[in-house]
Amino acid sequence: MAIKNAFYAQSGGVTAVINASACGVIETARKHPDQIGKVYAGRNGIIGALREELIDTSEESDDAIRALMHTPGGAFGSCRYKMKNLTENRREYERLVEVFRAHDIGYFFYNGGGDSQDTAFKVSQIADKMGYPITCIGVPKTVDNDLPFTDCCPGFGSVAKYVATSTLEASLDIRSMCESSTKVFILEVMGRHAGWIAAAGGLAGNGRDEPPHIILFPEIPFEREAFLARVEQSVKDYGYCVVVASEGAQYEDGRFVADAGGKDAFGHTQLGGVAPTLANMVKQALGYKFHWAVADYLQRAARHIASATDVEQAYTVGQKAVEMALAGKQAVMPIIVREQSSPYRWHIGEAPLSEVANQEKKMPIHYISDDGFGITEDCREYLQPLIEGEAFPPFENGIPKVAHLKNVLAEKKLKTPFEV
Amino acid sequence: MAIKNAFYAQSGGVTAVINASACGVIETARKHPDQIGKVYAGRNGIIGALREELIDTSEESDDAIRALMHTPGGAFGSCRYKMKNLTENRREYERLVEVFRAHDIGYFFYNGGGDSQDTAFKVSQIADKMGYPITCIGVPKTVDNDLPFTDCCPGFGSVAKYVATSTLEASLDIRSMCESSTKVFILEVMGRHAGWIAAAGGLAGNGRDEPPHIILFPEIPFEREAFLARVEQSVKDYGYCVVVASEGAQYEDGRFVADAGGKDAFGHTQLGGVAPTLANMVKQALGYKFHWAVADYLQRAARHIASATDVEQAYTVGQKAVEMALAGKQAVMPIIVREQSSPYRWHIGEAPLSEVANQEKKMPIHYISDDGFGITEDCREYLQPLIEGEAFPPFENGIPKVAHLKNVLAEKKLKTPFEV
Repeated sequence: MAIKNAFYAQSGGVTAVINASACGVIETARKHPDQIGKVYAGRNGIIGALREELIDTSEESDDAIRALMHTPGGAFGSCRYKMKNLTENRREYERLVEVFRAHDIGYFFYNGGGDSQDTAFKVSQIADKMGYPITCIGVPKTVDNDLPFTDCCPGFGSVAKYVATSTLEASLDIRSMCESSTKVFILEVMGRHAGWIAAAGGLAGNGRDEPPHIILFPEIPFEREAFLARVEQSVKDYGYCVVVASEGAQYEDGRFVADAGGKDAFGHTQLGGVAPTLANMVKQALGYKFHWAVADYLQRAARHIASATDVEQAYTVGQKAVEMALAGKQAVMPIIVREQSSPYRWHIGEAPLSEVANQEKKMPIHYISDDGFGITEDCREYLQPLIEGEAFPPFENGIPKVAHLKNVLAEKKLKTPFEV
Repeated sequence: MAIKNAFYAQSGGVTAVINASACGVIETARKHPDQIGKVYAGRNGIIGALREELIDTSEESDDAIRALMHTPGGAFGSCRYKMKNLTENRREYERLVEVFRAHDIGYFFYNGGGDSQDTAFKVSQIADKMGYPITCIGVPKTVDNDLPFTDCCPGFGSVAKYVATSTLEASLDIRSMCESSTKVFILEVMGRHAGWIAAAGGLAGNGRDEPPHIILFPEIPFEREAFLARVEQSVKDYGYCVVVASEGAQYEDGRFVADAGGKDAFGHTQLGGVAPTLANMVKQALGYKFHWAVADYLQRAARHIASATDVEQAYTVGQKAVEMALAGKQAVMPIIVREQSSPYRWHIGEAPLSEVANQEKKMPIHYISDDGFGITEDCREYLQPLIEGEAFPPFENGIPKVAHLKNVLAEKKLKTPFEV
């Protein structure tokens, strides 16, 4: 079997552990020098392939690659770039073939969520439809936890651990303050289409009497009166109320709660934030003093509080992707298969990219309690193992130590630049 | 020397390590059973004393008290309650004397910031002016780092570590995304009057080329054009821009940047958030895609990423407060005295409450770089040791394990309730 180079790229919103998948790919490739030559990483995802901006990872030491295990973000740059179909934009695929051929690339590993797996699937068609032999394997990643087939998505467990931990900590804070000060605390978390991340806030407490007292899911239409009644009841019963709100919380008619319709002093539409919108709603209706937080990127970048389970799974899908490629698989993605929840046991399976692409896994409705404001025991059983184990990064000077890659670009071999 | 009981209470905004001070007080008191009987903790600060709601900490096991070392928030409840002067509201002081006498309380430890040390000082006057012998010692605490005399305030170092870590992590995230997506990230942090916490964001990078590219301090008047010019320059130079903004960022005329003057759909004034306000400003003027986060309570409750230095200092001021009381001191507060920055060495000194109360320590202007957007080497040297060392809490089921106190109230001995 001839030695071929590999192309690896990161795509879509990055996570605390996507670099662990990169580490899994690169370390495993390095163990097979008889089959895989260099691993080129796309600078900024697939854009790097189109522009022939290929980072030569062979320039990085083993230690530097290992440091990816504890470095959040996308070490090679990611992108939001969706490729059209081969028939719609043949020019891009021809460019990919040109670049791959110029750099003798025979393996393509694409690390991302639904849209990215769609790209990986389209690239795999190059082999058949354009006669350029390339092995394409998807590497799953997304904090949204919405990829089909896989039991969970690398990246999600760490956000879930961050959100559960932050909810617990902030709850202890407001509980201390509520007698004479703040009575309502609202934490806004990611998840525009599904409530997986908001649900993780539920792991902070156990049962209705423990915070969070309210979780707002995109799956459950937001009703102002029911929400306010529950806030008021919580303050009466416990002295305070903790709310974890998905950024995707929405009214029955599909309007996002965050679209408050506000204008700033210049008459420009104010870009929302579900947390401040809810906080103002509570203040107007009930008069309670409030605080709110929007975790935004902090939640998905929080490698310092990553789940050890998640880190291990992220590494493993990278490793298995390479092993699948070497075993002659094509257009598949390693997935996580749960054997049992407690004690947690899982193994790696595979799913065809043709079926992964553009499918969204929704949160099962039986994971949400009947009143719509909490999680069920089924949900808890599902989520619990995903946040387990700590994988603290090394620290230096009081902050996490992160990988510093050289990110040297391979010399370009093509004459023409390419506009993306 | 007769055995007397002690009263301890937590006051003002809580921190990730105020319970470590409580632990220091209670553990040290337990070592002196010949002088200190029970330690009663005020339920919700001084309010607990006024209402005769005294938590009997002798009901808690040594292990439960030790668990306070890794539990954020205020385990006994805090309060925002400022006592008037003795001459203005003698009734409250008479009530305190009644309660203290009924429970044989001879020591008063008050754990808080400037306002709280003011209360502690006023209570100390009971001894002289009302003839009730009580030893009053302040225990410093505040994330704002604005107490005078002490080199730093317990609580600050942990927020600083959280902010530096979060800034670093989020910067790696946006750096990965900026080529085809988000170009500006704004993190809003606490500090309405002083830029100490915002300054800590500066520890995420080293030098002007590393994020954060812009820090906004309350001390430096906000100028829209200069800010936007720097954002644009950063995006040009580095591809992205990371901003750490103090909630207290304000215009020359004292208006807070967060007071955008916006109205919601109902015409109600929108309660700000400096981060979304700045984000909209950037979007309107420069068109960049942005993300923003507001850390709010998450930052001051984040015991999971506390500074080991801070935890140790928080414990020590609690311990020393008790030792000072036993040494016959009156109306003082233990302070942290820096001997040198590198390697960091410090010891405990003391300051008179009469001078601590109601004084605010400002950030020295030479801690802010000439352009107003960064920190100087002097500032870095000051801040660096305060975030050093990790003190991860134990975890259980994937989230931090926290103290669960019984918080049993001592039987009331007074006939009359008291309205606060």
